[in-house]
Amino acid sequence: MIPAADASLHDRTQRSFASDNYSGVHPEVLTALAAANEGHQVAYGEDQYTARLQEVMEHHFGEGISIYPVFNGTGANVLSLQSILPRWGAVICPRTAHINVDENAAPERVGGIKLLTVPTPDGKLTPELIDQEAWGWGDQHRAQPLAVSITQTTELGTLYSVAEIKAIADHCHARGMRVHMDGARLANAAAALGQPLRAFTRDAGVDILSFGGTKNGLMFGECIVVLDQEASTGLEYLRKLNMQLASKMRFVSAQLIALLEGDLWLRSASHANAMAARLTEGVRGIQGVTLTQETTANAVFALLPPGAADRIRESFRFYDWDQATGEVRWMCSFDTTEEDVDAFIDAISREVSS
Amino acid sequence: MIPAADASLHDRTQRSFASDNYSGVHPEVLTALAAANEGHQVAYGEDQYTARLQEVMEHHFGEGISIYPVFNGTGANVLSLQSILPRWGAVICPRTAHINVDENAAPERVGGIKLLTVPTPDGKLTPELIDQEAWGWGDQHRAQPLAVSITQTTELGTLYSVAEIKAIADHCHARGMRVHMDGARLANAAAALGQPLRAFTRDAGVDILSFGGTKNGLMFGECIVVLDQEASTGLEYLRKLNMQLASKMRFVSAQLIALLEGDLWLRSASHANAMAARLTEGVRGIQGVTLTQETTANAVFALLPPGAADRIRESFRFYDWDQATGEVRWMCSFDTTEEDVDAFIDAISREVSS
Amino acid sequence: MIPAADASLHDRTQRSFASDNYSGVHPEVLTALAAANEGHQVAYGEDQYTARLQEVMEHHFGEGISIYPVFNGTGANVLSLQSILPRWGAVICPRTAHINVDENAAPERVGGIKLLTVPTPDGKLTPELIDQEAWGWGDQHRAQPLAVSITQTTELGTLYSVAEIKAIADHCHARGMRVHMDGARLANAAAALGQPLRAFTRDAGVDILSFGGTKNGLMFGECIVVLDQEASTGLEYLRKLNMQLASKMRFVSAQLIALLEGDLWLRSASHANAMAARLTEGVRGIQGVTLTQETTANAVFALLPPGAADRIRESFRFYDWDQATGEVRWMCSFDTTEEDVDAFIDAISREVSS
Amino acid sequence: MIPAADASLHDRTQRSFASDNYSGVHPEVLTALAAANEGHQVAYGEDQYTARLQEVMEHHFGEGISIYPVFNGTGANVLSLQSILPRWGAVICPRTAHINVDENAAPERVGGIKLLTVPTPDGKLTPELIDQEAWGWGDQHRAQPLAVSITQTTELGTLYSVAEIKAIADHCHARGMRVHMDGARLANAAAALGQPLRAFTRDAGVDILSFGGTKNGLMFGECIVVLDQEASTGLEYLRKLNMQLASKMRFVSAQLIALLEGDLWLRSASHANAMAARLTEGVRGIQGVTLTQETTANAVFALLPPGAADRIRESFRFYDWDQATGEVRWMCSFDTTEEDVDAFIDAISREVSS
Repeated sequence: MIPAADASLHDRTQRSFASDNYSGVHPEVLTALAAANEGHQVAYGEDQYTARLQEVMEHHFGEGISIYPVFNGTGANVLSLQSILPRWGAVICPRTAHINVDENAAPERVGGIKLLTVPTPDGKLTPELIDQEAWGWGDQHRAQPLAVSITQTTELGTLYSVAEIKAIADHCHARGMRVHMDGARLANAAAALGQPLRAFTRDAGVDILSFGGTKNGLMFGECIVVLDQEASTGLEYLRKLNMQLASKMRFVSAQLIALLEGDLWLRSASHANAMAARLTEGVRGIQGVTLTQETTANAVFALLPPGAADRIRESFRFYDWDQATGEVRWMCSFDTTEEDVDAFIDAISREVSS
Repeated sequence: MIPAADASLHDRTQRSFASDNYSGVHPEVLTALAAANEGHQVAYGEDQYTARLQEVMEHHFGEGISIYPVFNGTGANVLSLQSILPRWGAVICPRTAHINVDENAAPERVGGIKLLTVPTPDGKLTPELIDQEAWGWGDQHRAQPLAVSITQTTELGTLYSVAEIKAIADHCHARGMRVHMDGARLANAAAALGQPLRAFTRDAGVDILSFGGTKNGLMFGECIVVLDQEASTGLEYLRKLNMQLASKMRFVSAQLIALLEGDLWLRSASHANAMAARLTEGVRGIQGVTLTQETTANAVFALLPPGAADRIRESFRFYDWDQATGEVRWMCSFDTTEEDVDAFIDAISREVSS
Repeated sequence: MIPAADASLHDRTQRSFASDNYSGVHPEVLTALAAANEGHQVAYGEDQYTARLQEVMEHHFGEGISIYPVFNGTGANVLSLQSILPRWGAVICPRTAHINVDENAAPERVGGIKLLTVPTPDGKLTPELIDQEAWGWGDQHRAQPLAVSITQTTELGTLYSVAEIKAIADHCHARGMRVHMDGARLANAAAALGQPLRAFTRDAGVDILSFGGTKNGLMFGECIVVLDQEASTGLEYLRKLNMQLASKMRFVSAQLIALLEGDLWLRSASHANAMAARLTEGVRGIQGVTLTQETTANAVFALLPPGAADRIRESFRFYDWDQATGEVRWMCSFDTTEEDVDAFIDAISREVSS
Repeated sequence: MIPAADASLHDRTQRSFASDNYSGVHPEVLTALAAANEGHQVAYGEDQYTARLQEVMEHHFGEGISIYPVFNGTGANVLSLQSILPRWGAVICPRTAHINVDENAAPERVGGIKLLTVPTPDGKLTPELIDQEAWGWGDQHRAQPLAVSITQTTELGTLYSVAEIKAIADHCHARGMRVHMDGARLANAAAALGQPLRAFTRDAGVDILSFGGTKNGLMFGECIVVLDQEASTGLEYLRKLNMQLASKMRFVSAQLIALLEGDLWLRSASHANAMAARLTEGVRGIQGVTLTQETTANAVFALLPPGAADRIRESFRFYDWDQATGEVRWMCSFDTTEEDVDAFIDAISREVSS
């Protein structure tokens, strides 16, 4: 027998500003997992929790949608894109898109999808930016641009307005292109916009959605939501063959139900956003700190003087965004406290001026 | 606000004989998940639980191994095979292998790997059977047979002895082929063999292992264990690009620790095996029931008279194995009780003779 | 300057019985290549030769077809299958199919297609054999059997009758499966059947065809012929992205025109078939030679006594088909002469009885 | 019988400035094809022409190289890159690279390779430009930049000096990256540089080369040349599984021998370059024509006033390069005559000033 270590191996009080996936599981989600346990349930999605999740999602997005719970965000993105594209399809996305910079080559190698990337100042596409790559239909030499992927909120912490999304979707649909939304932080966007989920997704013309759970307090699990049935095909097969089909799917669905049945999704996201706003306010007055993107949700981007980042990191972990310029990213999570933020502001203030 | 359904949507007392992934999570695993919660931990594998899991795995398999927790078994298998094969490599496996019949085309489409399948009577390869496809090295027209995949226990519920595995591994290594073991039910094999995990894996010459957790009481999570470092390369990248990298990995690792740090893995597997043995004994005397494979672990295969299966299924869910012949599969799980088995035997007896 | 070797480096009088791709180019084809030379023609298929080829193909297969000249047979097969299958589609084929045994893993790795193989005695599928793998539609765990591939004439030199092909096509279509024909030796089949090309392809229900040129006297070049427009999609893109789009396509099309505009295709194939028939007759009486497949086209399969094959090969090159049993394959080509055959029969007779 | 059209379907005297693959086959190459005909030769590369080609290539590039004749340039590029990269490898290339803009998604979908693209003013990389994407080694989230691909001459008609290539290769090798050269117009580069082929490839540190034949007067056929054996692996298998293995390979090799055994490669390329120089000189004085790239080889890039391009195209076909700006590309070929150029200059002059 191996001598048992303490069940808890880590400091349960320590939090950072590195990423919203450094945090753990919201207590209500953990409770839901326990409630879904025991007894037998049909595997691979024919369980009662996945059936209930369909209803819960319909409450948010309306009837006529279909849902595909998966393991992670990269899975949700690649599967969504495959399901709306033929083998020769390409996706227009910002150069900073998660699918382009953070998923190794999953879209290309596993999805077989070429990404047509566009530089942007703030991580947001516009019809004009899309048009940089939206051409060449019918040219056999060019991977066909048949989808656009936008991230809400973006990888740079910025936010599309409802009107901006509508403009993009109209522009795409008029050109025969489908619209995918990477919603890893969709709840943060809803909180920031003060809009129901449907308003800036389905009603704005988004065809398919990667609905994010992990970054908003789930243990694991995301959900593809097909908003326009005519846009997408084969996801039941694509999910399995791309290794994203959970056998005990009830535990993915139960978490998503816990998040979405009540208002946990909104409470958690609003809180994380509020903590980012507090942080932004707190550092705004610190000489030497320059905010580089508008804080709209739970991310703060700033420039620090040389050396300051490493000194601050002795107390709080966070990531460099651009080592060349000294830009850093600070993320708030559902479990970030006001005390955490204030202590962090103190540390920043101290180390920047030292 | 959506009116909240009961947190528990299913009958927590109902169990079936359909699959060991119809069962839920062992209570000790659920406790471990809670203990791993709260506070922040570095994402993507640099957490303290994954570090501890390395030690726990070394306790079982010895020093010099490396581990890669992943989401599911298909992921573990495809990644393992990719990591031991060049792009032109092929895998010899039984025609009944999970990688051939239950993973859609993940090995072929995502892995890019050709499977060279061999018919077997009992799901087990032998050196002689391997030689049916182990030829053609250096022939550019033939996908090169550079690995063999065996499943322990097999998809037909049968078991390789230590000597049989050694013979296969020696045969393969002498021909420049690597050996992968699909260990979705590895703990059941250990219980059946009465051997430590290492004895019939690393010490028998297996190069890389898909260690199964989900079918032995985890919520989700498997672990690739590289037993021979020279056999495998690039798994850190392959895991991400194949969409099997969990961001909150601590929750995969904490489950595997709960399973493997003490004897939970063995207790659960031994119990499931014992329930299958009880079931086998109970049906052996029933006229009209013919056992078709030796019951060595937690699976029972039998032939039933026409119509009987559907009648029994009105009380207990299970799968047809071969509709043409009337062969069925009954799986026992860590949570199968003696009362479940006895009631199932009663139902079989009643419906077969009716 | 490198001292120039003789322009002709090989013995232009030596022929073998190894493969119909050991032969060179029919003189009429070479003349056509020269006639297509000089001046400029639009690249990538918009040239006048490819336009003419469309007309020539329509003469043989009727209106409403579309054609895609490609480089080689593996390309024609993989592209054809991709174009009639979704990403989750699988292909039922004989275990001896060229796509399964001679194309490395191109169908799986490049095409992303799982092959569901069926053992056959003679390389020919039947509805009953197809049914061994034609099941599991709607099961997400199973690559979906949505196409069947047959080879005419087969890799074992055997021939489907028109009625056999019709029966297969009807069987497939009734189950929602498409039919691909690998016609690397389609002209030999037409000669053997005494039927126009259309009778045993389009009129028999074949949906898409790999029309072979190289083995019937072309320098290089095959042609995908889409016989049912509703079966296939995207070939213009698939051809380019799979690296089968010739820039100077006029030279592929000009060869196919030379073959098909007149009766060169039939003359050459009939001659090769006649040479195989002569060979079969010649060896039938030799004690120790056992014919193992019916000679219907240009291939002869036989069993030889141990050692005989190597002795015969000192005079004439040919391939072992199955080293374990001593089975060999002898192929005749458009340029095989009666003298070649008779000398070969003499050599066989001499070495088998020695 | 189909009534035979004239063997020659096109106007053999008409030439354009659209692409060097609009031209046909050099007469010396056609003669070599005829000389390689008749008799039997072993298929798939074991013929005497391919053996001789090895010697001819060694004359140019030195001993210790290996060669892989393939069908086309996309094939040569994708196979070369696969052979020098693991499954998780990425390639840094200019945004204008042929592999990025003209090969549909072959590198991504067939090769499984992510392209990390860098904007350039002239189609040329530099160590500094490479460094924009040469980072993140060891980061599992990032496709690993392990190769750089440069094109010589570039897609914009520009030329790397020997020193520039050396600087790139040294820079790459110091960072563990390999160097691929897309040499679709390598002969034009040699002619422009006045250097032997080896000087700016192997001796400058290039690891693997796509040697181009089609654009320099072949009917079809390119050749991968492995310059550093330690850089590349598995090409014999990759060529077959990627559908680039010609059965009658003697006819690829014979063409390359005709090109490279004597000085045909250099004569043809020098002539094409001279025609481009003549064209450049001729248009330099035309008011309204602005040259946009330096003419170093056989391509000329220019801006024309609105409407002029279409008017000129009534006499001579050529391509728009950038419709937004009015930039056009004019290519000269081995068969472009001084009269062609002069007539073209006249047409440009006439239509620009009209």
